[in-house]
Amino acid sequence: MNTADLGLPVDVPSTALFTDHYELTMLQAALKAGTAERRSVFEVFTRRLPNGRRYGVVAGTGRVLDAVENFRFDAGVLGFLRERRIVDEATLEWLSGYRFSGDIWGYPEGEVYFPGSPILRVEGSFAECVLLETVILSILNHDSAIAAAASRMASAAGDRPLIEMGARRTHELSAVAASRAAYVGGFASTSDLAAGFRYNIPTVGTSAHAFTLLHDSERDAFRAQVESMGRGTTLLVDTYDVAEAVRTAVEVAGPELGAVRIDSGDLLLVAHRVRQQLDALGAHRTRILVTSDLDEYAIASLAAAPVDAYGVGTQLVTGSGHPTASMVYKLVARAESADPKAPLRPVAKKSSGGKTSIGGRKWAARRLDADGVAEAEVVGTGPVPAELADRQLLVELVKGGEIVGREPLDAARDRHLAARAGLPLSATQLSRGEPVIPTEYVHLRSGSQ
Amino acid sequence: MNTADLGLPVDVPSTALFTDHYELTMLQAALKAGTAERRSVFEVFTRRLPNGRRYGVVAGTGRVLDAVENFRFDAGVLGFLRERRIVDEATLEWLSGYRFSGDIWGYPEGEVYFPGSPILRVEGSFAECVLLETVILSILNHDSAIAAAASRMASAAGDRPLIEMGARRTHELSAVAASRAAYVGGFASTSDLAAGFRYNIPTVGTSAHAFTLLHDSERDAFRAQVESMGRGTTLLVDTYDVAEAVRTAVEVAGPELGAVRIDSGDLLLVAHRVRQQLDALGAHRTRILVTSDLDEYAIASLAAAPVDAYGVGTQLVTGSGHPTASMVYKLVARAESADPKAPLRPVAKKSSGGKTSIGGRKWAARRLDADGVAEAEVVGTGPVPAELADRQLLVELVKGGEIVGREPLDAARDRHLAARAGLPLSATQLSRGEPVIPTEYVHLRSGSQ
Repeated sequence: MNTADLGLPVDVPSTALFTDHYELTMLQAALKAGTAERRSVFEVFTRRLPNGRRYGVVAGTGRVLDAVENFRFDAGVLGFLRERRIVDEATLEWLSGYRFSGDIWGYPEGEVYFPGSPILRVEGSFAECVLLETVILSILNHDSAIAAAASRMASAAGDRPLIEMGARRTHELSAVAASRAAYVGGFASTSDLAAGFRYNIPTVGTSAHAFTLLHDSERDAFRAQVESMGRGTTLLVDTYDVAEAVRTAVEVAGPELGAVRIDSGDLLLVAHRVRQQLDALGAHRTRILVTSDLDEYAIASLAAAPVDAYGVGTQLVTGSGHPTASMVYKLVARAESADPKAPLRPVAKKSSGGKTSIGGRKWAARRLDADGVAEAEVVGTGPVPAELADRQLLVELVKGGEIVGREPLDAARDRHLAARAGLPLSATQLSRGEPVIPTEYVHLRSGSQ
Repeated sequence: MNTADLGLPVDVPSTALFTDHYELTMLQAALKAGTAERRSVFEVFTRRLPNGRRYGVVAGTGRVLDAVENFRFDAGVLGFLRERRIVDEATLEWLSGYRFSGDIWGYPEGEVYFPGSPILRVEGSFAECVLLETVILSILNHDSAIAAAASRMASAAGDRPLIEMGARRTHELSAVAASRAAYVGGFASTSDLAAGFRYNIPTVGTSAHAFTLLHDSERDAFRAQVESMGRGTTLLVDTYDVAEAVRTAVEVAGPELGAVRIDSGDLLLVAHRVRQQLDALGAHRTRILVTSDLDEYAIASLAAAPVDAYGVGTQLVTGSGHPTASMVYKLVARAESADPKAPLRPVAKKSSGGKTSIGGRKWAARRLDADGVAEAEVVGTGPVPAELADRQLLVELVKGGEIVGREPLDAARDRHLAARAGLPLSATQLSRGEPVIPTEYVHLRSGSQ
């Protein structure tokens, strides 16, 4: 079976190929050396937030679970690896039976994170864990970058709904994942039908300038739209002259007109004028939707303007300047054998160059102050201090290869709202600054746990 | 049938859903108004290059052809649209027979472009063309952004090969398209197995820090790798101490060692030291591969360093600061009916706000100076001037719904090299500047062609 049958513009038979070549060559060498089955712990974390951001948002966890579950090497994939001589027959034989049988714990989707937060922890044999590096990072790096931008936009928008409209500005399947991540971050709906289909996110949309230009007059176009979609529709009023279009729109649809959309110009100015005009025409309940290269700063600048909803495209799907979350997947501990009782030894790269990491299997907890507001992200190895025991952040996602952490997308969305609300108020400042809470490392003991 | 069966982390049944909601509502309204069948011309172009870039690179055209060919509304998609009440029954009935039957012309893949270049021209009924907006833009905006970054990196790298290693930094399927676009832009290979599988791009890779950390010593790790992959392999030498690792590497593999990889630190400095050390150890032919957040500027800064190849990740897949190409898809002309002889009337948005466009069905040609170097991108409506007739840029891609423009990926790669070589020398300056040739509009006659 092949994705070509489905008319997808991609043709990839399994998540197992969302993998870097070196993962398979490492596997082959480790199998030959007898080290492949050593019990290992890999962790996903980031060394820094994007420049000036106050918090990160975990997104993509649900997609990671799907990808891990479907990570299998079928005959087509094995044939490709054999033909290209990427690995030897012994490795192909091993791969043919691949099924992740280890454990995954992680920050639940929608949770916030900080530098050093162990966002995902993958445990099993070196062989089974090392293969998951690329697909896990692809998903978490992309989706978390989008969710972080979405969250900033959503807090800037306050109670006004945000529509995700960026499909045309990113890869067609990134777009679907971006809609999902935006929803987790607080967006209300999407223009992307594939995201509606796949994730049940509400979809919205009415018309583009092309629709007005197709007709002999703007009035004809508005009439055609209202006849098809009813008076509650949203009419696009900036194809020719905004004031004339607003007048025509209310003439055609009456004061029951649902909304007008403005897609160009100085939105602050135009929104005020359009609101005045609508009110003067008696269309007091007609809403104003603005769309035009908005980002969180533009949204914030419109806070006092008579705007009812925002459509956001480019800046959302490109992470508002930070299209990837710079998470890494690192071996942090391993045993000398496959024996579950063999002690785990912390390991870490030590060379200079700023890419060091902290070895050891980690837990994480968020410490609160007396008012219940987060005051530190505490990351440690060894036992969890008693006072933090009920503030731990990692939850069980995969147990012995079985997915146990699935949840509805709305749970992640709700969690994000709650997590952001639990941060100090300065979390939602848009200006550049430090992470809103520090990361503290505790109880780092080498060689034991 | 469903992509879930394939273990893809996405589940989208057809390219027809890579579509914004409003395209279907416009279709419904136009069907009802009797305007849906009006003969129409849409064009893809960009109003500007990313800040300071000298040229753009067309990429994704081959993927657009696949997407158009597979744009069908099957029972699953129609059921979704019905259940969500996105369009009415008459529209669903129309969609069930959808098959693009028009014509598409465009810049061939790998060609360079400038502001206003009509990169793609889609002609047919309004109904059949309007539906393709989102999927066409998604593909061209993403792929062209990556190819433009790749092209700058490739020209900075000169004869040294570039390896695309960014899969982990972007959506797992963007990554596949990014590898493809990077190859068009001049990269030699990729780490992404899915890209190797789908597009037959050479894949490469050997080992990560985790492999060294898995073993009891760096020597053990190197020995395991050499035993598995031979002396021609690439050993990663910056897990602990680079100088010690290089010594160990040559001891283990001998002077026949294929290459060493450096992934951190001041690459300029480290590369010089490693080269001296390798030469002192007699490993004169051992190559040096560097990888560590490289972009075109870092690559250029290493031009005089003893580096043999570059691996590029984040900055490639994020378009080196410009992850999307800002192309738009605009109705530029339409007739009053479906009659192929009915005259096309140029149309364009006229409102203020900087988003105006130029109406009319366009041709484009690249004018050369006496030395055969490009001196202007000439875009026009109406007849093509005789002196530009053999310099026209648009080629036929789809004819009456049949794909006629397919070509091997290497053709696009070769074309890009030739197209870039035909630009003035300042094209490959990395510093910010204006587009390297101006776009001239000629013969703009309103209301006729």
